[in-house]
Amino acid sequence: MKLIIIGANGTVGSAINNELGSRHDIICVGKTSGDIQLDISDSAQIRALFARTGKVDGVVVAAGSVHFAALNNIEEQHFHIGLNSKLMGQVNVAQIGQPYLHDGGSITLTSGVVGEAPIRHGASAAMVNGALEGFVRGAAIELPRSLRINIVSPGLLEESVAALGSFFYGFEAVSAKRVGLAYARSVEGAQTGQVYTVR
Amino acid sequence: MKLIIIGANGTVGSAINNELGSRHDIICVGKTSGDIQLDISDSAQIRALFARTGKVDGVVVAAGSVHFAALNNIEEQHFHIGLNSKLMGQVNVAQIGQPYLHDGGSITLTSGVVGEAPIRHGASAAMVNGALEGFVRGAAIELPRSLRINIVSPGLLEESVAALGSFFYGFEAVSAKRVGLAYARSVEGAQTGQVYTVR
Repeated sequence: MKLIIIGANGTVGSAINNELGSRHDIICVGKTSGDIQLDISDSAQIRALFARTGKVDGVVVAAGSVHFAALNNIEEQHFHIGLNSKLMGQVNVAQIGQPYLHDGGSITLTSGVVGEAPIRHGASAAMVNGALEGFVRGAAIELPRSLRINIVSPGLLEESVAALGSFFYGFEAVSAKRVGLAYARSVEGAQTGQVYTVR
Repeated sequence: MKLIIIGANGTVGSAINNELGSRHDIICVGKTSGDIQLDISDSAQIRALFARTGKVDGVVVAAGSVHFAALNNIEEQHFHIGLNSKLMGQVNVAQIGQPYLHDGGSITLTSGVVGEAPIRHGASAAMVNGALEGFVRGAAIELPRSLRINIVSPGLLEESVAALGSFFYGFEAVSAKRVGLAYARSVEGAQTGQVYTVR
């Protein structure tokens, strides 16, 4: 299969690439790295990306920013960071990418453990992750041509404990291998509208 | 208790008012009706609302618009209708309203069955409802002064079947009485971070 991985150089993206790269052709997309550069919050750049890649069998997104801060320090505009980047960035990839997918092709988005489980400073992330999972459930039943859409909700990766562990005291970290498997299940499986949690 | 109900004249708002109005002082807020008018998508108007009401024991929101359309007809700007109105309108009420709540006071938001269960034309609603539930779970653990926040997810009300039933074939409608009870559970109960579903 020919697959696009957006956010391919991140911790989660590397896990996806390690799992899928050995048996598929991967177009790696990153904000500043990879085969093609993309700022996911800019839908014009998403259009340009697909115009350049042409038709593919799947697109996987593990990208997008969210503002982490104490609830009483999150202003209206801080919520819009996550809404414009992680939420609408991924949704725009799903919407703009559909015509570029072969029949039966797949869209795989990324949420995360925050939201299902609350953490301090995580209200905006919880909002965005819930929105993404809702969108995937809603969109799955309306996609044409047997296109599929799923979302992976990874827990804190073992590789991220050093950087982010202080937000996640008491959470069991998950291996990159297990996270990669969840994306493979979405891309190479046959289900749609699923939330694949890795905990 | 002194309570604000935003969207008090709507189908859900009337159900809330019928349940809580008999034993509490209600300030009814509507877009064009009620004691005070408010466009919930405008945070300046939300600030003005609380400046006018002063301190209360609870605020309940059953308001906000979402764009319903087939997935392939939902453009980026259509998603922003729901993000700016139903989602950020309710979130802004929760954030701006906190200082106006007495200790132990409650915030009650409204999502809906769409998202948990997908319906055609409902991808944007599914996104917004998921976002609201995620926000409530995330925010609950960070509220100060024993403030509480919950969300009610009503199914299709019996009163709405005539207008909306064609979107919800096969769904069991719920009574306004049962929906009102869920809001009472949030306002008069002691839990926080809960999603009270009425199905």
